Amino acid sequence: MDNKENKFENLTCPIPISRSEIVSIGHGSGGSLTKQLIASIFVKYFSNPILDQENDFADLSFPELQNGYRIVTSTDAHVVSPIFFPGGDIGRLAVAGTVNDISMSGGIPKYLTVSFIIEEGFPIYQLEKIASSMKACADEADILIIAGDTKVVEKGKADQIFISSTGIGIVPADININGSSAQIGDSVIISGTIGDHGIAVLGARNELGFSTSIESDVGPLNHLIQNILAAAPHIHVLRDPTRGGVATTLNEIALQSNVNITLDETLLPIQAQVRGVCEILGFDPLYVANEGKVIIFAPDHEEKALLESLKKHPLGKNAMHIGKVNKAESNPMVLMKTAIGGTRILDMLTGAMLPRIC
Amino acid sequence: MDNKENKFENLTCPIPISRSEIVSIGHGSGGSLTKQLIASIFVKYFSNPILDQENDFADLSFPELQNGYRIVTSTDAHVVSPIFFPGGDIGRLAVAGTVNDISMSGGIPKYLTVSFIIEEGFPIYQLEKIASSMKACADEADILIIAGDTKVVEKGKADQIFISSTGIGIVPADININGSSAQIGDSVIISGTIGDHGIAVLGARNELGFSTSIESDVGPLNHLIQNILAAAPHIHVLRDPTRGGVATTLNEIALQSNVNITLDETLLPIQAQVRGVCEILGFDPLYVANEGKVIIFAPDHEEKALLESLKKHPLGKNAMHIGKVNKAESNPMVLMKTAIGGTRILDMLTGAMLPRIC
Repeated sequence: MDNKENKFENLTCPIPISRSEIVSIGHGSGGSLTKQLIASIFVKYFSNPILDQENDFADLSFPELQNGYRIVTSTDAHVVSPIFFPGGDIGRLAVAGTVNDISMSGGIPKYLTVSFIIEEGFPIYQLEKIASSMKACADEADILIIAGDTKVVEKGKADQIFISSTGIGIVPADININGSSAQIGDSVIISGTIGDHGIAVLGARNELGFSTSIESDVGPLNHLIQNILAAAPHIHVLRDPTRGGVATTLNEIALQSNVNITLDETLLPIQAQVRGVCEILGFDPLYVANEGKVIIFAPDHEEKALLESLKKHPLGKNAMHIGKVNKAESNPMVLMKTAIGGTRILDMLTGAMLPRIC
Repeated sequence: MDNKENKFENLTCPIPISRSEIVSIGHGSGGSLTKQLIASIFVKYFSNPILDQENDFADLSFPELQNGYRIVTSTDAHVVSPIFFPGGDIGRLAVAGTVNDISMSGGIPKYLTVSFIIEEGFPIYQLEKIASSMKACADEADILIIAGDTKVVEKGKADQIFISSTGIGIVPADININGSSAQIGDSVIISGTIGDHGIAVLGARNELGFSTSIESDVGPLNHLIQNILAAAPHIHVLRDPTRGGVATTLNEIALQSNVNITLDETLLPIQAQVRGVCEILGFDPLYVANEGKVIIFAPDHEEKALLESLKKHPLGKNAMHIGKVNKAESNPMVLMKTAIGGTRILDMLTGAMLPRIC
């Protein structure tokens, strides 16, 4: 625990936040500024062995559970703008996002609580559209929404609607999947194309100056995860590369597991339209947010079964091996073998490339 | 279940919300407009036997729990304005509010998740003050904050900071406390003075035109609840009269249990200053929000032990018997014997008396 805490504070937060600063958009990016804020303020006050696990889910060992079962929980606030976008909306995002964070434990999400902060004047028909979308996504994931809360603030004091969701799931004793379990030699696999969600939301803001047919990949991954765990029972790490993108997620895992991760640029699955938009706007797709995607670290000998299982599921049909885990020579880092034969370091996202993406 | 659902829809939502309406401040009041919105939109889509229990907590029977233990969970969004007020702040509110909702099951709150929506430009020193206050309240309640999320929105797109919190607790098999368990003949007891939180927050808005020394009662009730359950093990209902106040809370319980509740006006514990402010502003203290207060329904023969136990705890020293449960003659209702000898009906709060009180 001590080692991990130090790692968190020393490596991801070299410069503590100053008390005279103000919160910037970058502090919500999911990248290194977010980690600086968390380490300087939230870890400082809230630190405990469960929080300090630094996974997207918290793993709770209730003594009242039999046979070593554990309860897992995860929470997320959703502030995406616009609230309706190609492929989804803030309601689907709130349900699928939390279902996925629970699923990354290898456990089975069961229940969801939701709280709404609504701006005065928000149309009821839009609220109904969002509730209907949440219900459809909950049914798709086979979970129940079991508690909620609604607050309303004056016009101009919130932006339409914000939704916080918290999931509760259960993990059997023999499953121990988390960000600190990556092993040297592991294969790194992604379940599908990179950057779709971020570019779809950006397109919906009409800020591109041109239109695309890219849809968000937002959707619940829990059934896919249960399938691949049956096919490849020795999976070490599962994580969904949301805010901060694939590069930031892999940096987190490299730090937690104290390993290097080397990607092969030629293997990255990226839709031509996403690649095109990123080139025009100067974005790196590896930092663009995904929603219905999972990165999997598994031992080499399970890769074949894993990929076969992934490709059988609609959400995994574009799954690819994208890299390997190596020994960290000094500080753990993420490297990429480029298409032209070089190697470059992929840092964590620093500021906010695309604010309010989820 | 059918009976309860009908009751909910027929009695508290006589007129379904129109799809051409917009969300008003009253929809967040916790009164009958909130219930109309919940019944028309959220219950319509999310309805299931756990959600439909209509308690402030959801009661989950995981088959993986031994000896009949249950997990309870509860969620709340906090949008109080101003964020700092006499006796507390939004952080203390977010921790204590959710600890209390869990405690109303008779169970023991264990863990809390928190998600922050922060407006760009919010000062870091204020965020630290809030985090420190949350930690102090979590320690007071003996619970751990085990997961969190931070989102930042552009300046003008939120009002400083909103905090959603979700609690997880555990209930032993022999405890079955909920809003539908009130029995004819039960004594109704409140743990302390009425309306302190609402008037303290109103005072902090500088809208009174004069100053008061009233402090919010915001605080965790879990230890007090465990004490009184030991002293009076047959308690039927526990509920904290927050948004909507004592009158709205009692109306909810009357509906859930299909009983009448009769209060005695002369017995209501109200601080002289709170009474004075309410008289000047034309407020009824029975509709003003409380935070660190609980209403208890218990069989007559346990009242003495219950009051003794309450008065031993700092948060229960002003506890009072305030009324009785009677048979509902037609529709369940809340009645008050007034000081001058009459009887009046106490309805549920309709609109928003004090918006953004929690």
